[in-house]
Amino acid sequence: MNPLTSQIYPVIWEQDKVLLIDQTRLPNEYSIVEITRSSDMARAIKTMIVRGAPAIGVAAAYGMYLGAKEIETDKREEFLKKLEEVAQLLKQTRPTAVNLFWAISRMLKTAYETIGTVAEIKTILLKTAQKIQQEDLQTCQAIGENGLSVLPTEPDQLRILTHCNTGGLATAGYGTALGVIRSAWQSGRLLRVYADETRPRLQGAKLTAWECVQDKIPVTVISDGMAAHCMKQKMIDAVIVGADRIAANGDTANKIGTYSLAVVSKMHNVPFFVAAPLSTIDFDLPNGELIPIEERDPIEIYKVGNTIICPEGADFYNPAFDVTPAELITAIITEKGAVKPHELSLVISH
Amino acid sequence: MNPLTSQIYPVIWEQDKVLLIDQTRLPNEYSIVEITRSSDMARAIKTMIVRGAPAIGVAAAYGMYLGAKEIETDKREEFLKKLEEVAQLLKQTRPTAVNLFWAISRMLKTAYETIGTVAEIKTILLKTAQKIQQEDLQTCQAIGENGLSVLPTEPDQLRILTHCNTGGLATAGYGTALGVIRSAWQSGRLLRVYADETRPRLQGAKLTAWECVQDKIPVTVISDGMAAHCMKQKMIDAVIVGADRIAANGDTANKIGTYSLAVVSKMHNVPFFVAAPLSTIDFDLPNGELIPIEERDPIEIYKVGNTIICPEGADFYNPAFDVTPAELITAIITEKGAVKPHELSLVISH
Repeated sequence: MNPLTSQIYPVIWEQDKVLLIDQTRLPNEYSIVEITRSSDMARAIKTMIVRGAPAIGVAAAYGMYLGAKEIETDKREEFLKKLEEVAQLLKQTRPTAVNLFWAISRMLKTAYETIGTVAEIKTILLKTAQKIQQEDLQTCQAIGENGLSVLPTEPDQLRILTHCNTGGLATAGYGTALGVIRSAWQSGRLLRVYADETRPRLQGAKLTAWECVQDKIPVTVISDGMAAHCMKQKMIDAVIVGADRIAANGDTANKIGTYSLAVVSKMHNVPFFVAAPLSTIDFDLPNGELIPIEERDPIEIYKVGNTIICPEGADFYNPAFDVTPAELITAIITEKGAVKPHELSLVISH
Repeated sequence: MNPLTSQIYPVIWEQDKVLLIDQTRLPNEYSIVEITRSSDMARAIKTMIVRGAPAIGVAAAYGMYLGAKEIETDKREEFLKKLEEVAQLLKQTRPTAVNLFWAISRMLKTAYETIGTVAEIKTILLKTAQKIQQEDLQTCQAIGENGLSVLPTEPDQLRILTHCNTGGLATAGYGTALGVIRSAWQSGRLLRVYADETRPRLQGAKLTAWECVQDKIPVTVISDGMAAHCMKQKMIDAVIVGADRIAANGDTANKIGTYSLAVVSKMHNVPFFVAAPLSTIDFDLPNGELIPIEERDPIEIYKVGNTIICPEGADFYNPAFDVTPAELITAIITEKGAVKPHELSLVISH
């Protein structure tokens, strides 16, 4: 990996503590929060100091280890009982985050399956948290590499539009869709990133633009309604987005605004890619129509910073994501390769 | 007109002064600014206390009259010379506003063409300003009526999506696209308005939603990227937008984000209407490709209220409007009738 790029790790283990980039203060302030206790980690996840599904998973895994360290007993049964309480505390922070539950379960399972003293279990738990982090990083880097094989080869240097934040901040580092963009940059195939600001939470403007600036990748922020116009002006060569959940047929749920982007991409013959780890694919779900649409607090729409932008008496609709049908997706890029949406089952069988 | 609705007049003449709704303070504060001098009117236009092309035209016309009143001479030549200076002052406020120049020119022409004393000219100027205001209001009401003839007849009560602000605040009153929505509401054919918040300047969230709340029209504010998802969910029966400039072939320049909306409307078979006065049509312009795209200050994107939402080092692209090709437009609604875009010349010949 190029040492000049990809230095953004939202969760860092350092001797006996975890360092988190405080994502609520970006892009105006870069500050690090030190976490030494599991209860502080729970608060950090709840208040979105750390956010992004894979990053939350890594943070929760370290949270489990910190909790284990705090348990003062040599008795295995008592230790495991108290570790269950730590797991419970951490699970309550973000009730819909799949990666959170997955990471906590894996840590708990490791504890139960480790033969040895409490001290030995604690050592293994730290190693497991580090492994979860390392695996996610490797997954992202593989996604990045695989993306290069499907990106357009003309022009030599691409102008790529992305939506929301799918970067190092949202993962263990490097990113998924933004990971592909990083790989394109490192291999000289990227001219510029266009970042949808991504209303209502503005993760594109606040986080994606910030990551690009850190990596010295040229980035242009636009309002979400400008993407179609940019395509009409021939300013965009490809679109890459992430995914919250992918159905077996390739239908993809992702941050609200993704579907609109897919429709206007189709209209302009701009290739539209989804980059996501295999863990995002739900093979039990035949198609995207079955994905429930979560609605979030309207305050995300009517208040930006301290400014109220809507009158009292107005109603709001604030779906967290939308579903892009497989036929609008050029390819899905995973750590095992990039395939057409209807060929998803092929990557699993390899 | 239903006395319960359409009470929003951004510019009101009252005895010897002009009352303006301070649009920079909406939606959080409703306040009236009293203007008695032409220099204050110039400042009000420049600082966008009054905005929206037709509303600016009306305000400038009254500004010309206030300037005329301030001229203390009985000599016609001297009066006209000083009135030219007033015109100059008002013209410099918003250098690209076509209605501003048109209204000022009409007032000046009236002064030159009036035979009589300076006092008589002043009286005629007040009447002309009032006429400009009255004509715009009648135009909007005619657009509203004509819209009813082309709106879908099913379902009985429509859910109409609109973009930006095209309401009473932007005109002498009533509005263009929002005028059609008002007419639909008054005739019992409207269930709900969906208002795109309209980044970057948020005129939909701030002004359209405010007007709807004043008129007790149910309104739901959404982020711009949500419109396609709403259409996919069958929540939208029709889209109506305004226009900044319409080419002879029907291609329409309007607030940025309009083109994206037209593309996603087409994809979902949702009828897409443009409502605008005939004065918006430029028959000397064969098509929309020839309309230059004005870029505005990036601060509109990176700052919302007092909150900076982007990192230093990012670039921005902030086109003020985009061009929607005629083939995406179901009908153009004018004060003389509603027609298919390629039949625009027919409404003029009537």
